[in-house]
Amino acid sequence: MPLSEFDLIRRYFSDLSVHREDVILGVGDDCALLQPPAGQQLAVSMDTLVEGRHFSPGADANDLGYKCLAVNLSDLAAMGAEPAWATLGLTLPVADEHWLAAFAGGFAALAAAQKVQLVGGDTTRGPLSITVQVHGFVTPGEALRRDGARPGDLVYVSGTLGDAGLALRAGQGLGVADEHLPWLLKRLHRPTPRLALGQRLVGLASAAIDLSDGLGSDLRHICEASGVGAVLELGDLPLSPAVATHVSETGDWTLPLAAGDDYELCFTVPPHRQAEVEGLASRVSCPLTRVGMIERGSKLHAVLPDGQQIGGMPDGYDHFAHT
Amino acid sequence: MPLSEFDLIRRYFSDLSVHREDVILGVGDDCALLQPPAGQQLAVSMDTLVEGRHFSPGADANDLGYKCLAVNLSDLAAMGAEPAWATLGLTLPVADEHWLAAFAGGFAALAAAQKVQLVGGDTTRGPLSITVQVHGFVTPGEALRRDGARPGDLVYVSGTLGDAGLALRAGQGLGVADEHLPWLLKRLHRPTPRLALGQRLVGLASAAIDLSDGLGSDLRHICEASGVGAVLELGDLPLSPAVATHVSETGDWTLPLAAGDDYELCFTVPPHRQAEVEGLASRVSCPLTRVGMIERGSKLHAVLPDGQQIGGMPDGYDHFAHT
Repeated sequence: MPLSEFDLIRRYFSDLSVHREDVILGVGDDCALLQPPAGQQLAVSMDTLVEGRHFSPGADANDLGYKCLAVNLSDLAAMGAEPAWATLGLTLPVADEHWLAAFAGGFAALAAAQKVQLVGGDTTRGPLSITVQVHGFVTPGEALRRDGARPGDLVYVSGTLGDAGLALRAGQGLGVADEHLPWLLKRLHRPTPRLALGQRLVGLASAAIDLSDGLGSDLRHICEASGVGAVLELGDLPLSPAVATHVSETGDWTLPLAAGDDYELCFTVPPHRQAEVEGLASRVSCPLTRVGMIERGSKLHAVLPDGQQIGGMPDGYDHFAHT
Repeated sequence: MPLSEFDLIRRYFSDLSVHREDVILGVGDDCALLQPPAGQQLAVSMDTLVEGRHFSPGADANDLGYKCLAVNLSDLAAMGAEPAWATLGLTLPVADEHWLAAFAGGFAALAAAQKVQLVGGDTTRGPLSITVQVHGFVTPGEALRRDGARPGDLVYVSGTLGDAGLALRAGQGLGVADEHLPWLLKRLHRPTPRLALGQRLVGLASAAIDLSDGLGSDLRHICEASGVGAVLELGDLPLSPAVATHVSETGDWTLPLAAGDDYELCFTVPPHRQAEVEGLASRVSCPLTRVGMIERGSKLHAVLPDGQQIGGMPDGYDHFAHT
């Protein structure tokens, strides 16, 4: 007998081990009932992952369960929010118990680590697609927005750039040294949302965004929202050995600037607070690298390691423009 | 030049005319920032509509925009919540401007009527699928849940049952008198979420659910959550003339009991408060009909108009069991 929808939901998603006191009623009624903390604002973000677009047919279900939550938590990180609740809209071609168990396991692992409770959602039959919404808390007036960057602010990024893009290209046949592959694949399939960093940037960063589309495109969003321009020093971009090798061999900066899927934070900081940022890196176990500066105007440009200016910046991933 | 994702989102969804004061930051940053009212709980619900499953290829985009919000608001209605915010995860095979304008128009019409602001979401390319999450407010302890029905409580439903199911079957070739079709199609494509009713049932109903799967299945959810049984008097079911004709001609009760997509409320009320319910119908401009009673035990059974008991109840729509 096929599993019914209700059996499915109950079996794999009713109990993912996180039980928060602010969840009055979780999965199983018409709505979940949640108690936001007094005086806090709610930060919410929704992201969809579609088979064939964001991941390949046959992708590992445990990785997918992890990643669909991770990319959403990355948005909370970029606002400096503390994560709390998630909902999951899961559309599946078949109700495969092994797949569901693996998917739920990947989701649960990250949810438990970040104390996020799955409180509701919907399971339907159709082409594989996963929509997650996350909900977090921020103190009024303190969220990290895109519109606060000012000329003279320093531009930072966390972690390293272009690793996920290189893993993807390796899967398409680009040669990558074997010793780099496991780590690159982890960067692609199990990105680390920079939640602790985002929360510590509250009161320090003037603007922040998470790098989902690529530094070129995402920094442009900060510039447009803030009404400023920026210069990037490409020689300062933090690159893993594999990406650094690729860039030096090809002279192509697309991976760190536009491949997307980095899920690092890009943020701006007033120059007199530089020392505070640099002290933060060790406390959040994540490198923080200065990669440029905010300027007057509206232009985003880049300087190559040899000092040569380049004009056009490769664009980030855009679901409809690049098809 | 193809529209970019950002252009699409900006053009059709950044400004849908509702601007709530509790939305601190809407579409356009990593997260929306929302200010829940002091002391209230948050009710949230997420529903996905998939092409080929919940609607036919080529379905009217304006209707889809309306319906994807309506089915979610129906969940808020079933909890007695006051609607506030929505998010939209929209997956589209192509970025068709006419389709998007029509879809956004249908969504906006209902959002404006219910003072719901679209605050965020995601637009991606893929097989057509729509996920909406709604957020509303309830006073702590007052939400209408499924688990409060007690033996002796009267079972009510709003509106009429089976209309959407009959419209669907008419589309598949079942003969329906022409004069009924426009109204039946409206019941299928543009259901009315019973928000005013739900809010007035707070403090009066002992349990409530919205009828998305069909009365048989949805009343069973109330029974299971409350640890009770129920009897339905089929002769008392509120049927539109078209559905009444179909049932009397065929003797088949599947449409009102199990066709689903009614988006009416089913609720239970202690017997001494019957007069209050019956006074409510005119104030919410919606018929409220007593259709049965909650009993001890765990059995859900039905009595035909001629007094004959029937055992098994047709099941409601289940996305995975019925394929």
